[in-house]
Amino acid sequence: MYTLTTYRSVPSFAIGFVRDLRVRWALEEAGLPYQLRLIEFDERHSPAYRQQQPFGQVPMLQDGDLSLFESGAILLHLGEKTPALLLDAPAARAHVHTWMFAALNTVEPHVLNLVSLLAFSSGEAWAKERRPALEETVLQRLRDLDAWLEGREYLAGGFSAADILMVTVLRLLGATDHVARFPHLKAYLDRCTARAAFKKALADQLALYAPKVANA
Amino acid sequence: MYTLTTYRSVPSFAIGFVRDLRVRWALEEAGLPYQLRLIEFDERHSPAYRQQQPFGQVPMLQDGDLSLFESGAILLHLGEKTPALLLDAPAARAHVHTWMFAALNTVEPHVLNLVSLLAFSSGEAWAKERRPALEETVLQRLRDLDAWLEGREYLAGGFSAADILMVTVLRLLGATDHVARFPHLKAYLDRCTARAAFKKALADQLALYAPKVANA
Repeated sequence: MYTLTTYRSVPSFAIGFVRDLRVRWALEEAGLPYQLRLIEFDERHSPAYRQQQPFGQVPMLQDGDLSLFESGAILLHLGEKTPALLLDAPAARAHVHTWMFAALNTVEPHVLNLVSLLAFSSGEAWAKERRPALEETVLQRLRDLDAWLEGREYLAGGFSAADILMVTVLRLLGATDHVARFPHLKAYLDRCTARAAFKKALADQLALYAPKVANA
Repeated sequence: MYTLTTYRSVPSFAIGFVRDLRVRWALEEAGLPYQLRLIEFDERHSPAYRQQQPFGQVPMLQDGDLSLFESGAILLHLGEKTPALLLDAPAARAHVHTWMFAALNTVEPHVLNLVSLLAFSSGEAWAKERRPALEETVLQRLRDLDAWLEGREYLAGGFSAADILMVTVLRLLGATDHVARFPHLKAYLDRCTARAAFKKALADQLALYAPKVANA
């Protein structure tokens, strides 16, 4: 049985976007059962938690004696246990690896820079000056992805762990119309988020947090 | 024989920091011979190159029929061919994966935000306003790393691919004194960059680019 660590509650802007979603989705694709270990949001700063997760982030995954963090590393680990993430197939694995790192190192940092600015700083003077450059970098990445996805259903052949990472990155842009400008990318995002495993994973995250918002 | 794709020449600020350094270092640690395939800097935008590397970046690695990009994915691939990167050892592999993603997704984006600001925008109004927050985020990550490295020689047990990635990220801060504020981190950086394989890899990158600077 896997144990997934995440927050007991989160600020409302984070609901539906907490990174445990990536691990939940992967576990659902693989049909692997798991239990939750819930920590308080402020507990991420505690010395005890930092011993397990030096940067005070979620998710973490425990598999017996093995304790892992970083969503990319957790998906690599799960990919060894199941064919569902395409990481057990030697021919495909290197390509899946490539696109996993592309999602997390080439695309996500730029998306997060823009999304954080829009969410937390859009009224500040520096943000007004800086926003066009951040937006152009994101649009260039989306343009590159759109070109790659022309004629392709998924990033690396069949559906894989790379799609889980890329789609959860692209979803962060939901408050903008940026993805919708690119037809292949938009179709890809819709195709992936229509999967039963994604819907189950998202519903489970929302079910954990949503009642607390209603009662807040 | 591996073929490593990188630029024939680069702007002077990039010399010693082009990401092919990560792959060169890994190949040197493993004692694996390789040849270079050099492309012009502007060729990264060409349709032919985008077919191979959708984002127009380096490095790429060819291993027979397999063509890979993303430095993290290339190191994973090389790690299957050699014990030198600790990726062939089941017990250590999951921890090395964790720290590879930590270097590229948790640390590097913040370091690059700060370093890019300092290198390209420090005179701009937005940069003066934004710099303290970027600096504090970087310092927090360095503080977390310093705590982790107390009593440890390397991130994940023995020297591994994760150290290659983290050290090449930390080196980007060379123009600041940030790393030097953290004694365990500074000792770690010095320990890793004292390795013969790092020195050879860096010397080879400098030898490729430096004469062109002198003649420019």
